Amino acid sequence: MSEIEQLAINTIGLLSVDQVAAANSGHPGAPLGLSTVAHAIWKQMRINPKNPDWINRDRFVLSNGHSVALLYSLLHLFGYPLALNDLKQFRQLGSKTPGHPEAETPGIDVTTGPLGQGISNAVGLAIAQKNFAARFNKPGYTLSDSYTYVVLGDGCLQEGVSSEASSLAGHLQLNNLIAFYDDNHITIDGNTNVSFTEDVNKRYEAYGWNVLHVQNGNTDLAAIQAALEQAKKSDKPTLIRLTTIIGYGSLQQGTHSVHGAPLKADDIKQLKTKFGFNPEESFVVPQEVYDYYQKETLTPGAAAEEEWNALFASYAKEYPTEAAEISRRLSGEFPEGWESQLPTYTPADKPLATRKLSEITLDNIFDNLPELIGGSADLTGSNLTRSKDAVDFQPENTGLGTYNGRYIRYGVREHGMGAIMNGISAFGAHYKPYGGTFLNFVSYAAGAVRLSALSGHPVIWVATHDSIGLGEDGPTHQPIETLAHFRATPNLKVWRPADGNEVSAAYKVALESNHTPSIIALSRQNLPQLEGSSIEKASKGAYVLKDAENPDVILLATGSEVEIAVNSTELLKANGINARVVSFPDFHTFDQQSKEYQLSVLPDGVPILSVEVLSPFGWSKYSHEQFGLSRFGASGKAPEVYKLFEFTPEGVAKRAEKTVAFYKGQQVRSPLNRAF
Amino acid sequence: MSEIEQLAINTIGLLSVDQVAAANSGHPGAPLGLSTVAHAIWKQMRINPKNPDWINRDRFVLSNGHSVALLYSLLHLFGYPLALNDLKQFRQLGSKTPGHPEAETPGIDVTTGPLGQGISNAVGLAIAQKNFAARFNKPGYTLSDSYTYVVLGDGCLQEGVSSEASSLAGHLQLNNLIAFYDDNHITIDGNTNVSFTEDVNKRYEAYGWNVLHVQNGNTDLAAIQAALEQAKKSDKPTLIRLTTIIGYGSLQQGTHSVHGAPLKADDIKQLKTKFGFNPEESFVVPQEVYDYYQKETLTPGAAAEEEWNALFASYAKEYPTEAAEISRRLSGEFPEGWESQLPTYTPADKPLATRKLSEITLDNIFDNLPELIGGSADLTGSNLTRSKDAVDFQPENTGLGTYNGRYIRYGVREHGMGAIMNGISAFGAHYKPYGGTFLNFVSYAAGAVRLSALSGHPVIWVATHDSIGLGEDGPTHQPIETLAHFRATPNLKVWRPADGNEVSAAYKVALESNHTPSIIALSRQNLPQLEGSSIEKASKGAYVLKDAENPDVILLATGSEVEIAVNSTELLKANGINARVVSFPDFHTFDQQSKEYQLSVLPDGVPILSVEVLSPFGWSKYSHEQFGLSRFGASGKAPEVYKLFEFTPEGVAKRAEKTVAFYKGQQVRSPLNRAF
Ligand SMILES: [Ca+2]
Ligand SMILES: [Ca+2]
Repeated sequence: MSEIEQLAINTIGLLSVDQVAAANSGHPGAPLGLSTVAHAIWKQMRINPKNPDWINRDRFVLSNGHSVALLYSLLHLFGYPLALNDLKQFRQLGSKTPGHPEAETPGIDVTTGPLGQGISNAVGLAIAQKNFAARFNKPGYTLSDSYTYVVLGDGCLQEGVSSEASSLAGHLQLNNLIAFYDDNHITIDGNTNVSFTEDVNKRYEAYGWNVLHVQNGNTDLAAIQAALEQAKKSDKPTLIRLTTIIGYGSLQQGTHSVHGAPLKADDIKQLKTKFGFNPEESFVVPQEVYDYYQKETLTPGAAAEEEWNALFASYAKEYPTEAAEISRRLSGEFPEGWESQLPTYTPADKPLATRKLSEITLDNIFDNLPELIGGSADLTGSNLTRSKDAVDFQPENTGLGTYNGRYIRYGVREHGMGAIMNGISAFGAHYKPYGGTFLNFVSYAAGAVRLSALSGHPVIWVATHDSIGLGEDGPTHQPIETLAHFRATPNLKVWRPADGNEVSAAYKVALESNHTPSIIALSRQNLPQLEGSSIEKASKGAYVLKDAENPDVILLATGSEVEIAVNSTELLKANGINARVVSFPDFHTFDQQSKEYQLSVLPDGVPILSVEVLSPFGWSKYSHEQFGLSRFGASGKAPEVYKLFEFTPEGVAKRAEKTVAFYKGQQVRSPLNRAF
Repeated sequence: MSEIEQLAINTIGLLSVDQVAAANSGHPGAPLGLSTVAHAIWKQMRINPKNPDWINRDRFVLSNGHSVALLYSLLHLFGYPLALNDLKQFRQLGSKTPGHPEAETPGIDVTTGPLGQGISNAVGLAIAQKNFAARFNKPGYTLSDSYTYVVLGDGCLQEGVSSEASSLAGHLQLNNLIAFYDDNHITIDGNTNVSFTEDVNKRYEAYGWNVLHVQNGNTDLAAIQAALEQAKKSDKPTLIRLTTIIGYGSLQQGTHSVHGAPLKADDIKQLKTKFGFNPEESFVVPQEVYDYYQKETLTPGAAAEEEWNALFASYAKEYPTEAAEISRRLSGEFPEGWESQLPTYTPADKPLATRKLSEITLDNIFDNLPELIGGSADLTGSNLTRSKDAVDFQPENTGLGTYNGRYIRYGVREHGMGAIMNGISAFGAHYKPYGGTFLNFVSYAAGAVRLSALSGHPVIWVATHDSIGLGEDGPTHQPIETLAHFRATPNLKVWRPADGNEVSAAYKVALESNHTPSIIALSRQNLPQLEGSSIEKASKGAYVLKDAENPDVILLATGSEVEIAVNSTELLKANGINARVVSFPDFHTFDQQSKEYQLSVLPDGVPILSVEVLSPFGWSKYSHEQFGLSRFGASGKAPEVYKLFEFTPEGVAKRAEKTVAFYKGQQVRSPLNRAF
């Protein structure tokens, strides 16, 4: 290896060690072990830090996100807006260098840290690139040919989510995905031989990956570069197993004591001396390292973007329709009037399951919304997620679809699907991924859903069979706690529409949310088209569906219980009780309305009873009394199960009467009015 | 194959088809495809339906739980208390035959249905058996040598949880685990080639399993039996890939139309005719089939249990200590006075992180509670889950432990750990599994946690780093919604102890809960030993920690916020406000106390402010006003992050003052008093 490259590698390692030392917190071992491969990958990446969002840039995912100091070193050295002073603030409150990579930082493609997510996001990035290329590349116009590079560790490989995503990546033959496995034999528990003795190479071969091995990942730059070249020639995704020594160069190298704690001061000194640096100085970058990366990577990267821009300009002349679509999508705009395709309903329309109404919505909007890229974790025939015009996203040699297809067969892999959707969203180009499964099994993907919310990936879960209303499959499949879980998650919309207009509203708001993911919970059973619903009203999150003069009680309900609440008002009326019915499809959206609007829906002076056939946990935020289900469900015909738990007009009326009686003569304050 | 065996196999298949037809709901395809292997497995199983809990019985796990009709057929034919009339009530409300297998049914070892869980539970069953055998078997006294048999489908293999558990099973060399993979090439989405083209055999070989293949799983009984024999000779877990035709015998065999919908009436008729049955009759069992299984399986099974009882009687003479322990554990009793080992503290004791206090508790009780079997999903050094006297559970040839060890190195596999703990618990013998990870990553295991609660497996999650108090690792690791999620789950205790006495209380109640799992959320940071706490008081779920005369406000807090609330009372006092502080370590336990006790803690007439540095969602069940965190956290030093969000005595006092002012002169009702 040339002297300058060795110097660059040493600089990467020492900058990382200095960050961890300054913070007195973090992970120095992996950055030291990985500085050679990081150099090898980044040196040849096609990036232009002046435009970190360039659509045809290569992507980089640090799946073992705890090695983030390494990434900050790279971002600094490669000209992203991250100064040495920012590195000195590593892990400090308010700094640009938090403890794990966060996607809002320019140059960081996805938020990582929770193990297994990054490599799975990378599968999504690779899928999006293949789809984008298949849609837009034309003879002589290769607008999209970027790679997604990943570095991952033992922990990522142990997590099930990476198994799911990797198996699918093999099936999909994503040869634009190149992953380096940091085989350092160390996790926090010590040597990996305590729990991780599987043959990783063989496992990835079983998934259909191209598997390579670099024996000396710390020093053999040539072998790493050769492996990279070989990977690019493969017709499969490639896993390059890189045997490394964690904390390479430290006196403690190869042990787990360099994993998650700063190196000792003496150790850092000997390391700097060994690497030819002044042991008394920190955060040192030789000018020739900056110059080297400028020449090797940044100048060519800027030129590549310029070329791309020129190419796109001619493309726009030859393929104006496609070019207009690209421009629109890169600017984050929807096709004009897209929302006019959303179906609307009147009470004369027939009752349908909201999962069926979701299918109709998808059918209506799919063709005119090419950024929509759907799929399902198996169950397609049950959750009705496949638009009738959809083509499967598949390698052409399978005969089952093409990369231009926009329906992904995820298999029974909910967690993988969630993480892949995050990756598709992270690719850019206004991709709007949605994925289907039963509501109860969105919980399998909780780790990925949380990262959608944290990173602001506006992915959509089409979550059907949303209650005991699924009937015979019984309590193992009937969600109870699921909506409470996701409603408690920041920056996450959780829709439970009651009819066709509300389904359209859910899709409208979900798709137009640029930084907020959504779960749309849908019924298995038929529901009527309600009098009083509309897309506009439901788009406020909650609204008065059926009012009454001087209401004695307000019934708040969602989804399948709205009809029941409406029907209970007749029974109440017979007993002299006036009830307003509020349909409440999404807490998060309602919370964003003006206080004035909120109080017009849930005013002072009227007791409020919420009705939802799920855990009542959390409903007291909006209601005084809650009718819910604080136990697991039961297997049986849906109407019988509803009856068992008294989710009937009679059951609601009974509780509404008790509510009215309980609050009679009392001062009643809207739950929206709070002390602070 | 003999005529009687063919008749038995046909009977199994037709009984299953008849159930699905009677219910007009369910899955006929897998039972028909699997009746031959089901016969082969069950015929040779060592079971005694007269005592379904016999500790040395073989276990059976139907991981593809939607094939439950098959299991009900088997339970009926093998003499478990499930009559033909029960089978006729398949999937009906209140029947003994719900839509998926539920462990409360005699003869069903674990609840299955959510894919991937069953095979992972089976790994836990196999671990428990190995541990039990290593602990108690003596020369001449093989008290434990049972097998765990599993049937699983493509869906189970696609789920990441099964990857996690299977990789660990290979590492642990669990040769008492024999799994049949129903390789029928069909899922709900149709042919598996749309998403599942990996080489399963190779993948399992990579995990360190013994992999066999039976080409004709529908008819080649001899090959299945030979594979079973071969599996029993292996020193590894065995996966027998069984190529089958789904819906074997149906006119629609081999297609996904037989997967999840009843067969048509005509199809059933031709099937019965083909199988030599009267096409006009349903639920028919030839007497010779009952007789056959009686002779082949049930009589030998009963004899085996008798032999075991005799063996145990002599064992009790030779090994009275071990025998007494077995007897105690089989009766579900704790060692007398075990709880006296739980540490107690006074305010003079030094501040410690509750994760550290948890370690001290485990250290104290581990030796005298041999049913305790711990572990961690990596992170052992961070979550402090390993008692200093623990030996690792490892195959001896690894040199890292023995099967008599009680600390499991799960690797970074939270979901697998959760499902394995459920399996260990399901083994019986009073096994009390606990497993550690960061609280935020318990969510990765949500699917397994839910099944712990639904099936009543009292497993314990040691969930450390329970808030923004973990500091620098930042928002990817800081839980916000996690406690709301699990508090909303039925039958789940969610502890967040504030000091050492409360940690002891959490372990006491968790361990003594026979049918309720627990999550114990623990701090990374040090907390003081509180004035006024005790094991007894905390064991009620909530209690008055620090009272005030005629309180103007009640502060409810958990974990690290209790100290802050206590400190805020001084500030409040200076402003003339008397505050009661209630420590509230577990909602579920508090809900089980008498109404009288509950109202003594949270009486009418005093406004209540809850303080918890997590989502406030759900707290309005107990408080009028909530101080929580409705956004993601931040990376930085823990005290600085607390200060940023005003979780300080000043921040609490400010909100308490606003609460007092807001409710001044108003009628205030305890949130525990409800309309119904
Ligand atoms: Ca490692
Ligand atoms: Ca299958």
